[in-house]
Amino acid sequence: MQLALDHPHLISLAAGFTDDESLPVEETRELLNEILGSPRSRRAALQYGTTAGDPQLRRLTADRLKKLDSTGGTGLSASADDFSQHARLVRNARRPLSVAAAENYSSERVLITSGSQQLLYMVTECLCDPGDIVLVEDPTYFVYLGIVQSHGFYGRGIRLAADGIDLSHLEQTLETLRRRGELKRVKMLYLVSYSQNPTGITTSFVKKVAALAMLRRFERAAGHPIYLLEDAAYRELRFASDDVPSALAAEGADERVIYTGTYSKPFATGVRVGFGILPEPLLTIVLRVKANHDFGTSNLLQQLLCRALASCRYERHLPKLQRRYARKAATMTRAMREHFPADVRWQEPDGGLYVWARCPKPVRSGVNSRLFRSALKHDVLYVPGELCYADDPTRRKPSDEMRISFGSATEAEIRTGIARLGATLRELL
Amino acid sequence: MQLALDHPHLISLAAGFTDDESLPVEETRELLNEILGSPRSRRAALQYGTTAGDPQLRRLTADRLKKLDSTGGTGLSASADDFSQHARLVRNARRPLSVAAAENYSSERVLITSGSQQLLYMVTECLCDPGDIVLVEDPTYFVYLGIVQSHGFYGRGIRLAADGIDLSHLEQTLETLRRRGELKRVKMLYLVSYSQNPTGITTSFVKKVAALAMLRRFERAAGHPIYLLEDAAYRELRFASDDVPSALAAEGADERVIYTGTYSKPFATGVRVGFGILPEPLLTIVLRVKANHDFGTSNLLQQLLCRALASCRYERHLPKLQRRYARKAATMTRAMREHFPADVRWQEPDGGLYVWARCPKPVRSGVNSRLFRSALKHDVLYVPGELCYADDPTRRKPSDEMRISFGSATEAEIRTGIARLGATLRELL
Repeated sequence: MQLALDHPHLISLAAGFTDDESLPVEETRELLNEILGSPRSRRAALQYGTTAGDPQLRRLTADRLKKLDSTGGTGLSASADDFSQHARLVRNARRPLSVAAAENYSSERVLITSGSQQLLYMVTECLCDPGDIVLVEDPTYFVYLGIVQSHGFYGRGIRLAADGIDLSHLEQTLETLRRRGELKRVKMLYLVSYSQNPTGITTSFVKKVAALAMLRRFERAAGHPIYLLEDAAYRELRFASDDVPSALAAEGADERVIYTGTYSKPFATGVRVGFGILPEPLLTIVLRVKANHDFGTSNLLQQLLCRALASCRYERHLPKLQRRYARKAATMTRAMREHFPADVRWQEPDGGLYVWARCPKPVRSGVNSRLFRSALKHDVLYVPGELCYADDPTRRKPSDEMRISFGSATEAEIRTGIARLGATLRELL
Repeated sequence: MQLALDHPHLISLAAGFTDDESLPVEETRELLNEILGSPRSRRAALQYGTTAGDPQLRRLTADRLKKLDSTGGTGLSASADDFSQHARLVRNARRPLSVAAAENYSSERVLITSGSQQLLYMVTECLCDPGDIVLVEDPTYFVYLGIVQSHGFYGRGIRLAADGIDLSHLEQTLETLRRRGELKRVKMLYLVSYSQNPTGITTSFVKKVAALAMLRRFERAAGHPIYLLEDAAYRELRFASDDVPSALAAEGADERVIYTGTYSKPFATGVRVGFGILPEPLLTIVLRVKANHDFGTSNLLQQLLCRALASCRYERHLPKLQRRYARKAATMTRAMREHFPADVRWQEPDGGLYVWARCPKPVRSGVNSRLFRSALKHDVLYVPGELCYADDPTRRKPSDEMRISFGSATEAEIRTGIARLGATLRELL
């Protein structure tokens, strides 16, 4: 707020806000009129519901996930080859199911939350004790690091490759922790698996299966389950690649995979409805915490999403949204090619809201860097990459990256913002 | 759910649900159409907002509280006499302000939450460490006890009189804790100050001021602030007595009073919007936690309440609601006089959703009691009073009380339910 006041012409490429123009205003209005006009639903929508959430919304959510995972592209079909490639690491991994097992998608295991954020908070709060370690991608979603570190838990970064975490580094990290007797502090691995925030990387299905198998292999030494927490917040904001099955499609997922997704980002961020699908007995514990947080997400919002899904308005909205983000992403990278120094490095995003860029030496991008201060003077804001790295003493935090968002800025703002950022970069080189 | 399946004819007088008939269906529909029809508000309502909440809603909330406290009845006018009565206990208490101080109602200190429940959770999470003690009314809101006890904090019960906590018992408890060196574990006193859940008791203004002064007196020995957490969830569900000023009207409240209220119960429980007004630096800390929980309550719901308040539809709804609860409460106590054994004791409620009744000896009311099991066989459910008492080793938990709700049951259900409960009681005597 203060920043906006001090810089009235600021273009923010920092916030993770979504695109204003694509918000489903008319659809939402129609849906709400239907809900509040129908004698069957109008009072229920304005009354408390249950802590776990509306039964129909839970069922629609479970069915939808199963359908997505059963019809997904790359992951399943490519798995035979990919598996042999990871054979050494996945010694005990069984083959993924070609059709996901029904119990992995039971609506009884679905919990409706106030955005997927609330699920992340509650799961982490329930599973970890002070001093515990959460394995995270390096870099990862910085608000999740806030959850972890504010509770006195530690993030340990696992390196990223183009198709998800580096399995060798995961194994090596687990092995080191085992040797030091610290494995009992490890409760889960957190993956933002689709068009990751901040890097845009999508984790292949085979890597999810391999990671899951590897965690299981270390459970005996840990003395407790080690969960895979899959955050699929950007799954439906992908615009240039096939969908990939979630870890729920892996055998045994019903016991070890916590999957969370959201209807907010793809539909309307002002409507905060997310969900999780959790193994027992964790579900029961998280439900108890949810009862203490708010005893259930707003029923009106749940009914809205329920009707959006049941009427297929939700599905019809997605391609429009995806086309819009595809165009904005292209506008951004085109402007980057035009205005940025040639040695700035980035990947063309295939989904999500961000481009992750690495500055050439000796430019630093941190909060106290000349680049950041200079960009502000040029009225443009980005997220310094260093904020996305856990406080992990085993490696130095990179400080030459930027997260640049094409989510909320208009195309004109994107072009101007990138031109300003480019000018700032050129000045420093 | 299982209970409902096993007992298809069950009448629940247990749940704290609100009245279905009085839900503002048409008002909500109009408001949402206005919001989603207006070019100025329609996109903002479907987009993320700020963590603290919509600025207009925060301002309307602060202004409304100030107005309520400035025009309130009994508390302020009666204060001179009441003060001399409590003179010994309130040695250092300064007189309350006849017009509440502006800084006590700054909109900058307002935080919008997902129901007041979320505020209770976050404040308690932020202020307490495992082993800490929260002073609570004896009995108190049982979900709050869940928050306290699930974090490894302890509730210590302060006895209740007809006008709020027993100040002598509060002083004696604080004094005992001081002598034992345990005062450093005490971070706050939690009061459900209007038509309390479960007893229906309303705390007088003078008792709030006295309690606040007493807490301050023990702060030096504690070594830190001891806050008064005032939960006003039922303030607007009062139907038979004047409003009472909140603790915010006391001098110095801006430093020590955490006030929380809700728009859900008086307007629509399916619309989960509550609020808190907090002293700095606590506000900053709670805001950080709110960012981790959900980075802000649904903007659509906030806009709805904002417009309901600004258009006075909210104020116009309240008397209708209050008349309805007054009638249902009267129906319930009339049925109790008709059907209950003469030696069951209760107070006529002047607000809220509950009647709190004490059974005659030797009848016990607990979850494992004959009464509870027998009532279930008669297809009627109440909340056993023992659930509303903290696990406090300094006294034995009473187990002869019942919380009976007139909130969600229809008048016919109330009559039938009370007749069944009366028959059950008579059988046991």
